[in-house]
Amino acid sequence: MDDFEFRNPTKILFGRGAEAKVGVETAAIAKKILLHFGGGSIKASGLFDRVVASLREAGVEFVELGGVKPNPRLALVHEGVKLCKRHKLGLILAVGGGSVIDSAKAIAMGAVIEGDVWDFYLGKGQPKAALPVGTVLTIPAAGSEASTGTVITKEEGWLKRSVNTELIYPRFSILNPELAFTLPPFQVACGATDIMSHLMERYFTNVKNVSFTDRLLEATMKTIIAKAPQVMKNRHDYDAWSEFMWAGTIAHNNLLNTGRIGDWGSHDIEHEISGIYDVAHGAGLAVVFPAWMKFVHSHDLDRFVQWAVRVWNVELDVFNREAVVKEGIARMEAFFRSLGLGTTMAGLGIKDDRVDEMATKCTDGDTRSVGNFVRLDRAAVKRVLELAY
Amino acid sequence: MDDFEFRNPTKILFGRGAEAKVGVETAAIAKKILLHFGGGSIKASGLFDRVVASLREAGVEFVELGGVKPNPRLALVHEGVKLCKRHKLGLILAVGGGSVIDSAKAIAMGAVIEGDVWDFYLGKGQPKAALPVGTVLTIPAAGSEASTGTVITKEEGWLKRSVNTELIYPRFSILNPELAFTLPPFQVACGATDIMSHLMERYFTNVKNVSFTDRLLEATMKTIIAKAPQVMKNRHDYDAWSEFMWAGTIAHNNLLNTGRIGDWGSHDIEHEISGIYDVAHGAGLAVVFPAWMKFVHSHDLDRFVQWAVRVWNVELDVFNREAVVKEGIARMEAFFRSLGLGTTMAGLGIKDDRVDEMATKCTDGDTRSVGNFVRLDRAAVKRVLELAY
Repeated sequence: MDDFEFRNPTKILFGRGAEAKVGVETAAIAKKILLHFGGGSIKASGLFDRVVASLREAGVEFVELGGVKPNPRLALVHEGVKLCKRHKLGLILAVGGGSVIDSAKAIAMGAVIEGDVWDFYLGKGQPKAALPVGTVLTIPAAGSEASTGTVITKEEGWLKRSVNTELIYPRFSILNPELAFTLPPFQVACGATDIMSHLMERYFTNVKNVSFTDRLLEATMKTIIAKAPQVMKNRHDYDAWSEFMWAGTIAHNNLLNTGRIGDWGSHDIEHEISGIYDVAHGAGLAVVFPAWMKFVHSHDLDRFVQWAVRVWNVELDVFNREAVVKEGIARMEAFFRSLGLGTTMAGLGIKDDRVDEMATKCTDGDTRSVGNFVRLDRAAVKRVLELAY
Repeated sequence: MDDFEFRNPTKILFGRGAEAKVGVETAAIAKKILLHFGGGSIKASGLFDRVVASLREAGVEFVELGGVKPNPRLALVHEGVKLCKRHKLGLILAVGGGSVIDSAKAIAMGAVIEGDVWDFYLGKGQPKAALPVGTVLTIPAAGSEASTGTVITKEEGWLKRSVNTELIYPRFSILNPELAFTLPPFQVACGATDIMSHLMERYFTNVKNVSFTDRLLEATMKTIIAKAPQVMKNRHDYDAWSEFMWAGTIAHNNLLNTGRIGDWGSHDIEHEISGIYDVAHGAGLAVVFPAWMKFVHSHDLDRFVQWAVRVWNVELDVFNREAVVKEGIARMEAFFRSLGLGTTMAGLGIKDDRVDEMATKCTDGDTRSVGNFVRLDRAAVKRVLELAY
């Protein structure tokens, strides 16, 4: 196990109707806030009104900023930063999914500096402070509700970049599984895939003596595999949603990578696909992961055998370990397809004429490799993409 | 799953030589502290000197208070409170195991009030504040390094009482598995049993739809079952110790009881045994748990079957579920014995002439029940104790 430091101070308020607590939680930190959200769905569902009522009851004033889109944009972040400075706001409350929360985190860092927050995303300097962020989660998927990460897209050049810092752990996150009842099935499927990918990126590591976190990761994967079909079948199944939602948070709150180094190559490759073709992140991951596994599994066959046997219940055949792994990968593909997702680029309707371009962008023209479990150069990324067709 | 709130802000610094960071971590919070510890072992091992050097380098002044004993005593807590007030100390640094940390937490609560901190342990009033606590952990067992709990014993009447409050989550805890190398085998065995008991108390619940936390608990139990024999065999096995130690912290940091209600009856019963006979907590638990399981397993045979199959790898025989559970309990007893612990009161050398007295004390004269999975009245506690012979 590697040495590590770990801390996650996010307060989780979990349960039916938990959004009623948002006013009190917010008021304990700030009395004048930015209320940040996406489109009209939270207004149609009544969630917006309930949040506003709770804030008003607690004496919290707010400035509204809606309009966050998937792949949250820098322009809206800049708008939020201006609002925070102009009105001297003390907290960003994100009501929505990962995109809204990521946007809120960017605003939180931008509101306390003179310069442009985008510099942090470009790696120019480190944030030293941030306004507090609170969240009311509506989509179990990205895990941003208890994570140190934020991914923002700059429209010019469609540059997608991330920042990781403990400063942006949300101060509180409200998780009410009922809020997921109205998600469209495709979004549920993408969420399940996103969560699985957070777990698999962490699982495939070269660090030895990590059997404890291996088992925690396996436990969380098995939960998503069991619960995703249940919530797809009955989208009002509170019990299944509650386990799905909590597993989605734990998958990405940094506990499960304590003492180990994840891979994250598949995420980098997927960003190129969604960058060019505007497919949903989860849908792209369902295509990249099988291809990545086919390419890298021989690097550590034992680890893949363990994964196939423990996570996918493939019967161990010690004399045919390669076959065990192939069956594990096949079961993962069948799982993604059972959720209604394609597992090939062709299935996403993507032609193979821009593979070179994606491999080049992903590796900055072959000047950097992606992934840690296996370091992939441009040629390797290209091969993974080819295996995805 | 039940509704819950969860937050654990303790910063973990994990790895070889991590105690060298104690000065910097402490100085970020306070420049004048109470250095709290037990007997001479940390001085003999050189740990004390390393901690002191790190504190001095960071410009931290300290007042020493050693002498914490197992079952930490109220008298020493009072002494610590006086020192904190007299010298205006800003943090309690506990260097030791659960007893030292629990004592430090008590001092932290007592140092900020006019009255007697013991009142909180008697349930008279709730703490509103506490000095910050930091820890350098030397014994993986009690889990106090990242928990909300403290257990203190008042010498007169040998009253053992606990307080649980988020105010006493340590601000930081330093976990260096190397520090466990010098633990005597008996203490290692008791630690393993204590950790297993924290997991089993949480596992046996009546709350439904908790499959995710079930799996996390099973993962952690399997880790202790795998690693305890390794560290018993080679007490300098850093890799095994690192997984054992981290699992011990996670077992008790409140994550694994999110959305569920644990039992804790076995802990209550064990406190009566160790209260009268002064046996080690872990040694007492190795006796109580098998007896408790024999008494209660029919209350939810399915849950015990799941535990036997998943944790102890008993082959599932759906036509003989009772036999599956019995085999699971037998394997747990064999595990405790393999660590060198007895699993019967007779094995601890305890006669059966005070069973009545223990059952009466445990239930305050049959005026309260213990446990949540099955509520045990005086007669039931007596029966559990009888099964332990």
